[in-house]
Amino acid sequence: MTKTNPGRFFEDYQVGQVIKHAVPRTVAEGERALYHALYPARHALYSSDVFAADCGLDGSPVDDLIAFHVVFGKTVPDVSLNAVANLGYAEGRWLLPVYPGDTLRSESEVIGVKENSNGKTGVVYVRTRGINQNDDVVLEYVRWVMVRKGNVDAPAPETVLPDLKKVLSVDDLVIPEGLTFENYYFDLAGEQHRWGDYAVGEIIDHVDGVTIEEAEHMLATRLWQNTAKVHFDLTFRPEGRLIYGGHVISMARALSFNGLANAQMIVGLNGGAHANPCFSGDTIKAWTEVLDKAETDFPGVGAIRLRLVATKDGSVGDLKGEDGKYKSGVLLDLDYWALMPV
Amino acid sequence: MTKTNPGRFFEDYQVGQVIKHAVPRTVAEGERALYHALYPARHALYSSDVFAADCGLDGSPVDDLIAFHVVFGKTVPDVSLNAVANLGYAEGRWLLPVYPGDTLRSESEVIGVKENSNGKTGVVYVRTRGINQNDDVVLEYVRWVMVRKGNVDAPAPETVLPDLKKVLSVDDLVIPEGLTFENYYFDLAGEQHRWGDYAVGEIIDHVDGVTIEEAEHMLATRLWQNTAKVHFDLTFRPEGRLIYGGHVISMARALSFNGLANAQMIVGLNGGAHANPCFSGDTIKAWTEVLDKAETDFPGVGAIRLRLVATKDGSVGDLKGEDGKYKSGVLLDLDYWALMPV
Amino acid sequence: MTKTNPGRFFEDYQVGQVIKHAVPRTVAEGERALYHALYPARHALYSSDVFAADCGLDGSPVDDLIAFHVVFGKTVPDVSLNAVANLGYAEGRWLLPVYPGDTLRSESEVIGVKENSNGKTGVVYVRTRGINQNDDVVLEYVRWVMVRKGNVDAPAPETVLPDLKKVLSVDDLVIPEGLTFENYYFDLAGEQHRWGDYAVGEIIDHVDGVTIEEAEHMLATRLWQNTAKVHFDLTFRPEGRLIYGGHVISMARALSFNGLANAQMIVGLNGGAHANPCFSGDTIKAWTEVLDKAETDFPGVGAIRLRLVATKDGSVGDLKGEDGKYKSGVLLDLDYWALMPV
Repeated sequence: MTKTNPGRFFEDYQVGQVIKHAVPRTVAEGERALYHALYPARHALYSSDVFAADCGLDGSPVDDLIAFHVVFGKTVPDVSLNAVANLGYAEGRWLLPVYPGDTLRSESEVIGVKENSNGKTGVVYVRTRGINQNDDVVLEYVRWVMVRKGNVDAPAPETVLPDLKKVLSVDDLVIPEGLTFENYYFDLAGEQHRWGDYAVGEIIDHVDGVTIEEAEHMLATRLWQNTAKVHFDLTFRPEGRLIYGGHVISMARALSFNGLANAQMIVGLNGGAHANPCFSGDTIKAWTEVLDKAETDFPGVGAIRLRLVATKDGSVGDLKGEDGKYKSGVLLDLDYWALMPV
Repeated sequence: MTKTNPGRFFEDYQVGQVIKHAVPRTVAEGERALYHALYPARHALYSSDVFAADCGLDGSPVDDLIAFHVVFGKTVPDVSLNAVANLGYAEGRWLLPVYPGDTLRSESEVIGVKENSNGKTGVVYVRTRGINQNDDVVLEYVRWVMVRKGNVDAPAPETVLPDLKKVLSVDDLVIPEGLTFENYYFDLAGEQHRWGDYAVGEIIDHVDGVTIEEAEHMLATRLWQNTAKVHFDLTFRPEGRLIYGGHVISMARALSFNGLANAQMIVGLNGGAHANPCFSGDTIKAWTEVLDKAETDFPGVGAIRLRLVATKDGSVGDLKGEDGKYKSGVLLDLDYWALMPV
Repeated sequence: MTKTNPGRFFEDYQVGQVIKHAVPRTVAEGERALYHALYPARHALYSSDVFAADCGLDGSPVDDLIAFHVVFGKTVPDVSLNAVANLGYAEGRWLLPVYPGDTLRSESEVIGVKENSNGKTGVVYVRTRGINQNDDVVLEYVRWVMVRKGNVDAPAPETVLPDLKKVLSVDDLVIPEGLTFENYYFDLAGEQHRWGDYAVGEIIDHVDGVTIEEAEHMLATRLWQNTAKVHFDLTFRPEGRLIYGGHVISMARALSFNGLANAQMIVGLNGGAHANPCFSGDTIKAWTEVLDKAETDFPGVGAIRLRLVATKDGSVGDLKGEDGKYKSGVLLDLDYWALMPV
């Protein structure tokens, strides 16, 4: 029994440590098709080789969130197997499109640790990088989690808190080489509204909803090789499988097509919170608030900063209570940058 | 909220109007594998590159109904979002095989409108075309739907009823260039009965059945980018998700393998009715009546016209009551032409 | 109704007979992605083209059990449609890796028959071969099943019992040309324990569990074109769909990653028993006993013989009762050879 992975405990992390995660994965047309079956994903750049080529790319990449999930999933056995909570994300950047046939692996560098005052848990900050077969970094992001101590008598480490940007500026974003929205086909994209039509502060109700089924979230979670048992084993969690937070992210992003079909590419992740747990039977709906807009140097390409909120109660625009806490119907609060035709 | 798609209402359609549908889609090996996981599809021409090459094709195309669903799915946001009922199909023809890697888009031309006497709804006829990356039409069919008026005070348009063929003749059918069944391997196809063994009027009970699960029909429906909320959102339809009619078509066609394994390619769709709604928990079974047979100019290739009926009560040969209406156990009545080795 | 496949009965099998099974199948990236969505499969050799190339292969093959299921599924309509029980496996060998794009077909030779004393059933032994597009055998195994007689008055055939090896020796195993584990990346494989670290008699609890859902096992079973109605049709089995035994095999093998991540390739199947039926709602867990170890001539490659046990009660190391029968919580007892870095 000693040969199975017990996961890391708080005292097993040291600042500066680099963890090479298993298992590398070649991503191909199969993952793309499954993504479109699991989520109502319709952004044209990730659906059509022809549309993507008209935007200056070498065919259609796999969805930006496929890249995220593949990279994230690998970190679970090393970072969050003994995690009590997933606390936050910051400084997420998509650095290179991932194409069918690419092979991804993940590495995480520990960039901060802070033991909690109870002496039983601590917070670990890691910067995770997704790396392709050419050793190019395709994606990076910071995540921090609360982790149990394995040995409560282990001494508290020196507290190191990383200096993280609250929000990426448009200059931090990396836009794929050659990208252009000058030959953009709005009819084919499914939406006439362009970057200039969105106003900061505007709220968009994405209207559609999906009631979640057990089989679907398990298929998705396994596809990303995230094998945390809370998602699969009803003898471990008789009260119900907990749905992988990334499933909610992808569902909400896909639902946001209805109103934001032209927010084609996700290029930055400023932050995110999984506000409440999601279970089978919940109906996920989504709304978006436009937080910021910026111009870019790429032809026809504007950047738009969006707050994407997933709910299980269908509420719109109603995020937190007077106590500053997320309301019980909110599942996700995600702050990201996307690229849109101007 | 104004940026989401409200769909078109009856008064928004004019005869002659051409609607370019979003979102183009590159179809590949992933869609093929999912099709085989979602349906018990086993027709050899769509399963094996080697079998298809022996039949004169450039490898195995994606299933003829994948092409249909991909093309159909794109029309939903523009044609049937506010539809009350899907009334019929006619003049459906598969014009070119679709191969992995092809990118499909859809266009629909409005070819008929007729306001109903209640002044609240009308019937819209569209001819939809699926077009590949070379601008070749790969599939076309006529569909008519009953659509709500958005503004009941909008004046009734001049009635235009298209002149539609009740049945395609064998000369209307387009057979893929190079197709031959002269080197046909009956063992590998799974059936010894050939075109000459089927008699007009013969009824075949396909015996097998599949009890439908929620997760499966949602995976299928999303895969075709059909996002009508009746199929997904239990807060919108607390009485149960309505299953996409195309899911029933594909399930019945796949079940018909047992008895019609050599009816390899669908080339024509004469008509079809979704007789009753289908829900999770229903057990789909199927039977076929041979309606007609015809010779073709292609070596070893015969055409056979089939009525494919899907049921949820396991009845066979029992379609309509004395009142001329479909019996309550009938889900689908589809009239199509297929190609078979003579 | 006479055109559907009634399946073969006991009296339809003669020793020496070769059955060519329908339907050939081209296996590609889609099947691989689905396999990773259906099972928590993470063995690196089947996940990453780069990892596989570092092991001397031409990219990542499809999972060894995909090859098994594809070959096995084709035999169902001819071998087990009227089977009362699947009794055993022997002499299973993986002879060539299967790569995306390969087309597989199956043939079975009848190598034994024995009528039971009740005169109503008999046991049929077949040696099944999976064959690729180059007519190379990629996999072979012996299976024996108990089959009903169609005509109880048919005379009993002469009993022929094949001489089967209880266990394959390491010399019987076929190791893929060029395979080397000399450049093996243990970090990326997810496990530091190597061949030398495992002791004969050692028992490994794989810890993780998956609660089975109906939609998932049906997707899997259809993917392998196994269409036995017990797996799909609740009107045929109102007491619950019986889960395809191969689904349990793949689930258990995937769960065994946690403790046996370096048991990369399955190359031999010595035997196997489906001890008890599995139904939706069961939680599959797994444990392994190390049965034997052997060196090979390939650089860095050791062979390890493993007993893989799947349970639905979470028991470990507890296989049979005093009566010699499998305990009720045991689903699967599989005896196989795998390859591991020394």
